[in-house]
Amino acid sequence: MSNNDENKGEACHRSRCPVSCLLELIGDKWTLLVVRDLLFDKHTFKELQSSPEKIPTNILADRLKRLEHSGLVRREQYQERPKRYAYHLTEKGQDLNPVMESMILWSNKHIPETYKLEDILNLGSE
Amino acid sequence: MSNNDENKGEACHRSRCPVSCLLELIGDKWTLLVVRDLLFDKHTFKELQSSPEKIPTNILADRLKRLEHSGLVRREQYQERPKRYAYHLTEKGQDLNPVMESMILWSNKHIPETYKLEDILNLGSE
Repeated sequence: MSNNDENKGEACHRSRCPVSCLLELIGDKWTLLVVRDLLFDKHTFKELQSSPEKIPTNILADRLKRLEHSGLVRREQYQERPKRYAYHLTEKGQDLNPVMESMILWSNKHIPETYKLEDILNLGSE
Repeated sequence: MSNNDENKGEACHRSRCPVSCLLELIGDKWTLLVVRDLLFDKHTFKELQSSPEKIPTNILADRLKRLEHSGLVRREQYQERPKRYAYHLTEKGQDLNPVMESMILWSNKHIPETYKLEDILNLGSE
């Protein structure tokens, strides 16, 4: 079990359904893309901003704040002047990997033009 | 492979990333709750509206239309006067089940107050 008492009850405003509760944390078009990028070793604001979906700056800042608030991401200062932060998934955030993988499998089956997992890994290293 | 040429290219406006493409179809707080209810044998508008999350009528109508448009749901008329429709997941829609299951596992691990899968099955039969 996770040690996330400080976040207990922050999801689940609508019902105690696990799908609904998770959607309160990640149910939008952008949050999981940030999680995806963090999984693929992007950690600075600039790196996260550079993805092909062109996430707007204000949305990226907002989603990082929410992800941190809900215990999925931790922020670490890596430079003093000027202050710079890097973002890392917590264990709770990394545990979204199977959700992501099941989404990839679905899309690869039903949307022919999507990149396969190995393509994504190659893209990440470009 | 699925036979969904008629829908080809309707997702994937932002990139060919499979996560991004699926989020264009289901990336909001409500769509997957409709899919969840359809998986648990709710099929009429009234049944779908009765879930504990209290989905607003206009959002339910919009999400059903989008789901039908993207080939995840088919609508069937089951009554002539007045016209009434039932909604069913297509194979493409049913294939979201593993996504849902991975979400349930995540929530059960990280959000203690969420219902377990067996609780949901019981709720569905109430």
